[in-house]
Amino acid sequence: MDKVITIGRQYGSGGREIGEKIAKRYGIPFYDNELITRAAKESGFAEESFERAEDKATNSLLYSLAMGINVYGNQDFGFSGLSLDDRIFLAQSDVIRKVAEEGPCVIVGRCADYVLKERDNVFNIFVRASLDYRLQRAIHNYQVNEKKAAEIIMKNDKRRGNYYNYHVGEKWLNLNNYDLVIRSDVSGIDNAVNCICTYLGD
Amino acid sequence: MDKVITIGRQYGSGGREIGEKIAKRYGIPFYDNELITRAAKESGFAEESFERAEDKATNSLLYSLAMGINVYGNQDFGFSGLSLDDRIFLAQSDVIRKVAEEGPCVIVGRCADYVLKERDNVFNIFVRASLDYRLQRAIHNYQVNEKKAAEIIMKNDKRRGNYYNYHVGEKWLNLNNYDLVIRSDVSGIDNAVNCICTYLGD
Repeated sequence: MDKVITIGRQYGSGGREIGEKIAKRYGIPFYDNELITRAAKESGFAEESFERAEDKATNSLLYSLAMGINVYGNQDFGFSGLSLDDRIFLAQSDVIRKVAEEGPCVIVGRCADYVLKERDNVFNIFVRASLDYRLQRAIHNYQVNEKKAAEIIMKNDKRRGNYYNYHVGEKWLNLNNYDLVIRSDVSGIDNAVNCICTYLGD
Repeated sequence: MDKVITIGRQYGSGGREIGEKIAKRYGIPFYDNELITRAAKESGFAEESFERAEDKATNSLLYSLAMGINVYGNQDFGFSGLSLDDRIFLAQSDVIRKVAEEGPCVIVGRCADYVLKERDNVFNIFVRASLDYRLQRAIHNYQVNEKKAAEIIMKNDKRRGNYYNYHVGEKWLNLNNYDLVIRSDVSGIDNAVNCICTYLGD
């Protein structure tokens, strides 16, 4: 397996778990929060700043405004005129390009498909699932009622969608962005992994 | 295999071929133009009328206008106030529901995913491919130059997209419409079939 595999995913669809299992099967690195940590260390930004960047994207308009005016400007990373959030995105992108350069790996989220679009060994997956399946997972994982679970899912999907739309300039749910889109609640997690590995020919 | 499998596809992506191979592997019926013929016979419409219905959808505005004003009204099929095209769509939908009722099968195109959305044994696939791959296929299949091939692809994708958007009321390329979206030029046709069958657990 010589591919860099990126995974986008709806909240609660099990995309992260699928990514971990694929990485384990191929014996290749898996990047999610580790990626953030590494980026934070390398760029000198505090880790909390990185987490804040994606959290902000809950409302498309507010997010755009925030991206425009949120220029703290105390540190200069050579991207003059860019907001802190934009600079964090660029620093993250640098890390994504670096780990992709190092060899095959799985990268979840962070618009990695877009960041790596010039490379030709990249394979882009999106994992989706029915709302009902995702509700049950959220209720179970967070011990909350259905209403609260629905709120969590909607907030997180909005955040991810706006983050993608803002940075990539393409619709998050446009199937043209991905090589394989898979619905995990129909296949189950393990069979989704089998399906992806079959597709990759390994 | 107890599923009704529907396949949407970008023009030149090999979706039809993939559908035929899946049907062959499972030993189940495959419906494409056969479906039109059957619908035409059962409803009493001439076959050409059916072909005309999808051909019209090359421009979203023109198509909507055509759907609104194209009421020949010489025949009454019990859908009073509907255009001929709408009535053809309803007649086609009846046939799709009938063949789905008869048992597992593969149905390509004709918004079958939408028509069968109330059934729970339906599995919706979308096949896409890079423009370059589709260009090469069109050049080879029609013995035309690249410019003409690009025209054919664009015209047909527009037609299919508008047909879907008009009848379903959802974006054709929104990944939420499908259980599995697969890019055939990366996997190859045969491996796409393997991947789909792995997903289905058979």
